[in-house]
Amino acid sequence: MKVAFLGLGAMGWPMAKNLKEAGFEVLVWNRTEAKARAHAERFGTRAVALEETSEAEILFTCLPTSSEVAAIAERLAGRLREGTVWVDCTSGDPSQSRAIAEALAEHGVAFLDAPVSGGTQGAEAGTLTIMVGGDPEAFERALPALNAIGERIVHVGPVGAGHAVKAVNNTLLALNLLAAAEGLATLVKEGVRGEVALEVINASSGRSFASADLIPNRVLDRSFPLTFKLGLLAKDVRIGARVAEAAGVPALAFHLAREVYEIARRTLGNDADHVEVVKLIEEWAGTEIR
Amino acid sequence: MKVAFLGLGAMGWPMAKNLKEAGFEVLVWNRTEAKARAHAERFGTRAVALEETSEAEILFTCLPTSSEVAAIAERLAGRLREGTVWVDCTSGDPSQSRAIAEALAEHGVAFLDAPVSGGTQGAEAGTLTIMVGGDPEAFERALPALNAIGERIVHVGPVGAGHAVKAVNNTLLALNLLAAAEGLATLVKEGVRGEVALEVINASSGRSFASADLIPNRVLDRSFPLTFKLGLLAKDVRIGARVAEAAGVPALAFHLAREVYEIARRTLGNDADHVEVVKLIEEWAGTEIR
Amino acid sequence: MKVAFLGLGAMGWPMAKNLKEAGFEVLVWNRTEAKARAHAERFGTRAVALEETSEAEILFTCLPTSSEVAAIAERLAGRLREGTVWVDCTSGDPSQSRAIAEALAEHGVAFLDAPVSGGTQGAEAGTLTIMVGGDPEAFERALPALNAIGERIVHVGPVGAGHAVKAVNNTLLALNLLAAAEGLATLVKEGVRGEVALEVINASSGRSFASADLIPNRVLDRSFPLTFKLGLLAKDVRIGARVAEAAGVPALAFHLAREVYEIARRTLGNDADHVEVVKLIEEWAGTEIR
Amino acid sequence: MKVAFLGLGAMGWPMAKNLKEAGFEVLVWNRTEAKARAHAERFGTRAVALEETSEAEILFTCLPTSSEVAAIAERLAGRLREGTVWVDCTSGDPSQSRAIAEALAEHGVAFLDAPVSGGTQGAEAGTLTIMVGGDPEAFERALPALNAIGERIVHVGPVGAGHAVKAVNNTLLALNLLAAAEGLATLVKEGVRGEVALEVINASSGRSFASADLIPNRVLDRSFPLTFKLGLLAKDVRIGARVAEAAGVPALAFHLAREVYEIARRTLGNDADHVEVVKLIEEWAGTEIR
Repeated sequence: MKVAFLGLGAMGWPMAKNLKEAGFEVLVWNRTEAKARAHAERFGTRAVALEETSEAEILFTCLPTSSEVAAIAERLAGRLREGTVWVDCTSGDPSQSRAIAEALAEHGVAFLDAPVSGGTQGAEAGTLTIMVGGDPEAFERALPALNAIGERIVHVGPVGAGHAVKAVNNTLLALNLLAAAEGLATLVKEGVRGEVALEVINASSGRSFASADLIPNRVLDRSFPLTFKLGLLAKDVRIGARVAEAAGVPALAFHLAREVYEIARRTLGNDADHVEVVKLIEEWAGTEIR
Repeated sequence: MKVAFLGLGAMGWPMAKNLKEAGFEVLVWNRTEAKARAHAERFGTRAVALEETSEAEILFTCLPTSSEVAAIAERLAGRLREGTVWVDCTSGDPSQSRAIAEALAEHGVAFLDAPVSGGTQGAEAGTLTIMVGGDPEAFERALPALNAIGERIVHVGPVGAGHAVKAVNNTLLALNLLAAAEGLATLVKEGVRGEVALEVINASSGRSFASADLIPNRVLDRSFPLTFKLGLLAKDVRIGARVAEAAGVPALAFHLAREVYEIARRTLGNDADHVEVVKLIEEWAGTEIR
Repeated sequence: MKVAFLGLGAMGWPMAKNLKEAGFEVLVWNRTEAKARAHAERFGTRAVALEETSEAEILFTCLPTSSEVAAIAERLAGRLREGTVWVDCTSGDPSQSRAIAEALAEHGVAFLDAPVSGGTQGAEAGTLTIMVGGDPEAFERALPALNAIGERIVHVGPVGAGHAVKAVNNTLLALNLLAAAEGLATLVKEGVRGEVALEVINASSGRSFASADLIPNRVLDRSFPLTFKLGLLAKDVRIGARVAEAAGVPALAFHLAREVYEIARRTLGNDADHVEVVKLIEEWAGTEIR
Repeated sequence: MKVAFLGLGAMGWPMAKNLKEAGFEVLVWNRTEAKARAHAERFGTRAVALEETSEAEILFTCLPTSSEVAAIAERLAGRLREGTVWVDCTSGDPSQSRAIAEALAEHGVAFLDAPVSGGTQGAEAGTLTIMVGGDPEAFERALPALNAIGERIVHVGPVGAGHAVKAVNNTLLALNLLAAAEGLATLVKEGVRGEVALEVINASSGRSFASADLIPNRVLDRSFPLTFKLGLLAKDVRIGARVAEAAGVPALAFHLAREVYEIARRTLGNDADHVEVVKLIEEWAGTEIR
């Protein structure tokens, strides 16, 4: 079976590799062509021009935002064969996804929004969680390929539902992290060591992925490794807040998160790691969480 | 060794029992005297007048707020023997605790703030997490008794630090729960079933105790069992916000939580369960998380 | 000169009348046709089919939202004569306005967004403030007609700028009113009479249109007359927050207002008056501002 | 009649002068003694030791916070004559004021909280607005002296009510200013000149003292004169939020203002002017309101 993979970033690069290793014939394309050629050389995939990706039966996109997906969909739509399944792993916007799906449907192409969770580590190991929105029958057809890159593959609803779940998940991450930062900064200023505070919180009802994983492993040791850009999390929180708004859900916390991550992004730069939002709270508080 | 236990509520009742079963001589006192007598009859403790509790070497309090602790401390202070350790398991206020500790210190009495986490189930089983603030030497003296009621006993800092850690933990719980409620209400309105959304979120970076335990077991099945009153969580969040304020930490999320739980408490009543805050978000959104 | 007026609501009805009285030949159209015929009978305007409005040199729209304007623009675009000026008095959305303007420009039609301020009273008296965005030359051509309905007519910037100014103004109104409601509810509960508190505030630095006009004349006497629907103000605040977002301005207060007015709208109904948001604060506080 | 004036800061200095010019015998005291001597030399008042101020029939305080007032009240309480009226013009805290009033009442001294509004200009001209809380009979006795320093003197309620009204007024100022800053930053980034935007807003429903006076006269010309310190406004907003909390009023906007001004104060310094909060919003937005 022939698949195409468009977008060989930190996530896409190992995902395309895993598809190849699972036995698929893999066409790769990247905006910076050299990267596609390097992938082909290293893993035996085939670097092609954008138009050639339309030959694939399953076409993956893994791009920065839905706008890039829409631009490529516009260029390829007329060339794609009826029955093609387009699997979009971008952390995208549900409303844009619905528009893309509609446009592709006119050409007999099914669109699945299929954002992933698990980081570069999960992408490498093929153990990603994949949340998929779209037609169940198209989902079934894409499943063998999805199985090559993920471990927990969940069909969550109609087109857009995958992106909605991803945006909400990341907004929860953003809020739990913000809350933990405010709380830890407070305790440190009250004379409690961060490690001790977290020992208690992580054995209690206040625990979250942020308090149990991010703060201990990235903040207390002041390492702040770059694994997920602040600018991208801020974008996801913007989408999360917009989805809540579109759904008619008053969401005071979601919108607060939106503004705080916007301030953080503008203060620390889009290329900082997402956990560095903690530094904004620390600067305001005049302390360091240790 | 003689210990006294003041306050036989849902938490204090089994804690006093566990002290007795661990071999301590236990004096019990309760505002409603009949409750103390019932405890004595059932577990072989001894119901006494408030003044008699001053005979104990270690005196526990487990009351609604620090104000009740302060009132009792004022009445007992002159009677307590030098060297007594006062262990306050109330979810109290750090600044009030520091004032109580100062007043008791004049009589040679050491004060430890030692709030607990683990719910009535943990209190029953003697597996509570206990976060203790105060003099390390007094902590050592109280440790045998603390071991009878808890499993994870952590000395977190000076007087007030225990209450500060508890208040921050509960404010994190409050915020993580609020965030999860907004997110789930949004996804349900977008056509994603709650169970499916949580399967993904709890395998991803957005997870928290609220999303992994409270929402699946209490909201999806609409059971909302009463285990921790909304009025008490709202009080803890008020303390959490006040501690952040006193520490000089700008804390947008903490203060938002404070106001939302105040609205919830006033709308749903103090006696609702804390998880029922979800119903406030549902009502605003016009949906039910299922 | 022939002008058309589309949308004879509470504002449009007297505005169309004033155009007629200023000597213009006025074609009127309304979704409910009977209303247009009544206007024609009463004021000597001419009720026409939608298509006929394309004969006008200047075409006014005054509709609930930009979506209705876009729908009509799509139907009329091909029929409009080159050189027509479209004056949109709707409290609309800048980004939608820019899209409409672009589409109309292809047919040689200039689009001005020209929302108004001053209420039904100002519409009746022809004393509206009009904030206009768009091409300065088109603005000059429309000015004689604008002078017939308004007193203070300000060219504020390019297409969309009029709607942006209107949305920001109304978001300021919403926030100043919310702040005044929280403050007055607090003072009343502290034993200060509303009238006395306002006497001081309105002579001091805390005063606003909300504290100086709305609260004294509509809240203290519990009259809450219906002059501007809560649902419409909530829409304007949504636009205000969206414009801030699009402009890249972190705006914590704007987004808080957005959510509070969304809660108010859902709790009190879209048809309540906008000042009734005060009742939401009163209900939360358990008091009445008197 | 003998009056004492304690605290010769930017406000107190001209207020004490006006009392003297109205014919009162005026004793002055200041923490920095030289300032009191300079006042005496210049205006014919009498610089005295703190203890001597107890001779006055009416004793004014005008200090940074209620804590300084409480400290002085403790030192003077035993010396004051029965029937003395203590008039506190500090922008203080209602709950602290109630405690001071209670302590002074034991010595037969009446306490009025009497914060002022009108700035240094109003203090100089004797045209201040004075909001007074406390016993009506004591208010009548103090009235002749109050008339010497203010123009609009309003008895607003029991002890603490004056400080509550002042704190609420200043919190409204803080919120209206924050809202105006967010709105203007947005419009400027959308291509509207600040002056043009304000022309419309100040003729419409969004106007406030902040939009009509502060922004045009201090921001547009980038002058930001120092008339009222940011640290002092932040303190007043803290009191405003605390009064709302104590009154049991959920106040989302008040608490948001509290946190934003705390961030501003920590970022820009306590000694910046209060209007410089605008610079924080501008920095976040990457623009300048002109």
